Amino acid sequence: MSVKPTILKLGGSVITRKEKPLTPNTPMIRRLAKEISEANVSPLVIIHGGGSFGHPIAKEHGIKGGYKDPSQIIGFSKTHLAMLTLNRLVVASLINHNIPAVGVQPSSIVISKSGRIHFMEDKPLKKLLDMGFVPVLHGDTVLDSEIGFTILSGDQLAAFLAIELGAGRIIMGIDVNGLYTADPKVDPSATLISHITLRELKRLQHKIRGAKVTDVTGGMLGKVVELMPAVERGIPAIIISAIKPDNLYRALRREKLVGTTIEKGESFG
Amino acid sequence: MSVKPTILKLGGSVITRKEKPLTPNTPMIRRLAKEISEANVSPLVIIHGGGSFGHPIAKEHGIKGGYKDPSQIIGFSKTHLAMLTLNRLVVASLINHNIPAVGVQPSSIVISKSGRIHFMEDKPLKKLLDMGFVPVLHGDTVLDSEIGFTILSGDQLAAFLAIELGAGRIIMGIDVNGLYTADPKVDPSATLISHITLRELKRLQHKIRGAKVTDVTGGMLGKVVELMPAVERGIPAIIISAIKPDNLYRALRREKLVGTTIEKGESFG
Repeated sequence: MSVKPTILKLGGSVITRKEKPLTPNTPMIRRLAKEISEANVSPLVIIHGGGSFGHPIAKEHGIKGGYKDPSQIIGFSKTHLAMLTLNRLVVASLINHNIPAVGVQPSSIVISKSGRIHFMEDKPLKKLLDMGFVPVLHGDTVLDSEIGFTILSGDQLAAFLAIELGAGRIIMGIDVNGLYTADPKVDPSATLISHITLRELKRLQHKIRGAKVTDVTGGMLGKVVELMPAVERGIPAIIISAIKPDNLYRALRREKLVGTTIEKGESFG
Repeated sequence: MSVKPTILKLGGSVITRKEKPLTPNTPMIRRLAKEISEANVSPLVIIHGGGSFGHPIAKEHGIKGGYKDPSQIIGFSKTHLAMLTLNRLVVASLINHNIPAVGVQPSSIVISKSGRIHFMEDKPLKKLLDMGFVPVLHGDTVLDSEIGFTILSGDQLAAFLAIELGAGRIIMGIDVNGLYTADPKVDPSATLISHITLRELKRLQHKIRGAKVTDVTGGMLGKVVELMPAVERGIPAIIISAIKPDNLYRALRREKLVGTTIEKGESFG
């Protein structure tokens, strides 16, 4: 591959109705598919979250914590089916916008170890990219060599694939503008961090952990921490609101926009 | 795995309405799910065909013949989406009948070479089986190292998996009673072959090929030939009508029924 792939993560809270189980945000999926089609970026890998499809069922059956009881087996199946259903909706909308999307289920190609990706078969995935397809993966139920099974988050998958595929960048489309100094949904003094280096990010992380409070950034820091291994290898991550019309298009086209850019920054080699 | 897995192939003409594009035979899928649930056989791998979901779109875009033109790329995506849609319906029905089904897309784990399976990642698949899940695969669009892409038939996949997983038997649920001496749909003199050895099958195949006529068995011989590599390794194949109520249940339970059994037969080692 001569051009470095773009990894696009679409948050589950963007493409589903968070408060309604198993309900897609169809107009949003359609608009994002249109923006992706118009931006016409290649090679491109899309990963989407679970939102109200994956999370409620996974939680009900305790899938993330691993295998404890035979009754969870059907719960794993149900959670995976919900993700398959959402993936099908996303892929269908992309194809409707003339994007050659191909759904790829992480459960078929990944085995994790205590929740971290331990093995991923990526030959078919790389060949799909080489031929001009847009693979569409998602947060998923996966088998785990230590705890039987677990949930693989789309964020962990995004960073892993970025490294594995030698990506040029990761774009995270979420439901707020980026990483804030506090939770923008509850704290009016919250300020958007438009640019942060890995060193500054680690300091922020340390400060928040040290304070033993819940994540003051409103959960965003946890997602950002997942991206750190990719940023460490020089792959910048751009966090944007995918809810605001045209934002995803602008990010894909490398146009100026409101958001958070995370870069490796100063080298201490 | 102590008990040898059963490989169950459900024909596309059984689970879809052959004459109506993209139309599932929902009552049939539901009944078969019920019979599978009641038979309670484990370990079990299910593979289904494409029927009116896969075939019309694949044909329209010439997917089976390989990559010739960029316009086929979106056709590959559309064909795969159709199969994903059908797979989701089958998996959902199985889960409704309390079978811990997990959809596995062949396109994510297989690379073929001139139409034959060249590589298959089966670690997650084997682990699913070990944990008591029922993997549900299907005929699919796959990438091909020689011709770019092609269609992998559920029949080829069934024989390959039977060998790979050390299966005890293959059950083929189709829309006629088994292998006939002629096409039972057009020739009233057609007689059902209830038992055939590999040697007899090869003789029949030779005779039909020698006559340079179209497959007199009504297309069944082509399907049966795909199973030969598995039968060669001592894995019997049982062909039954899945349309007749209770037949699939009886086959899974090893009860007596009308159908064709193909066995290796005499050994010439």
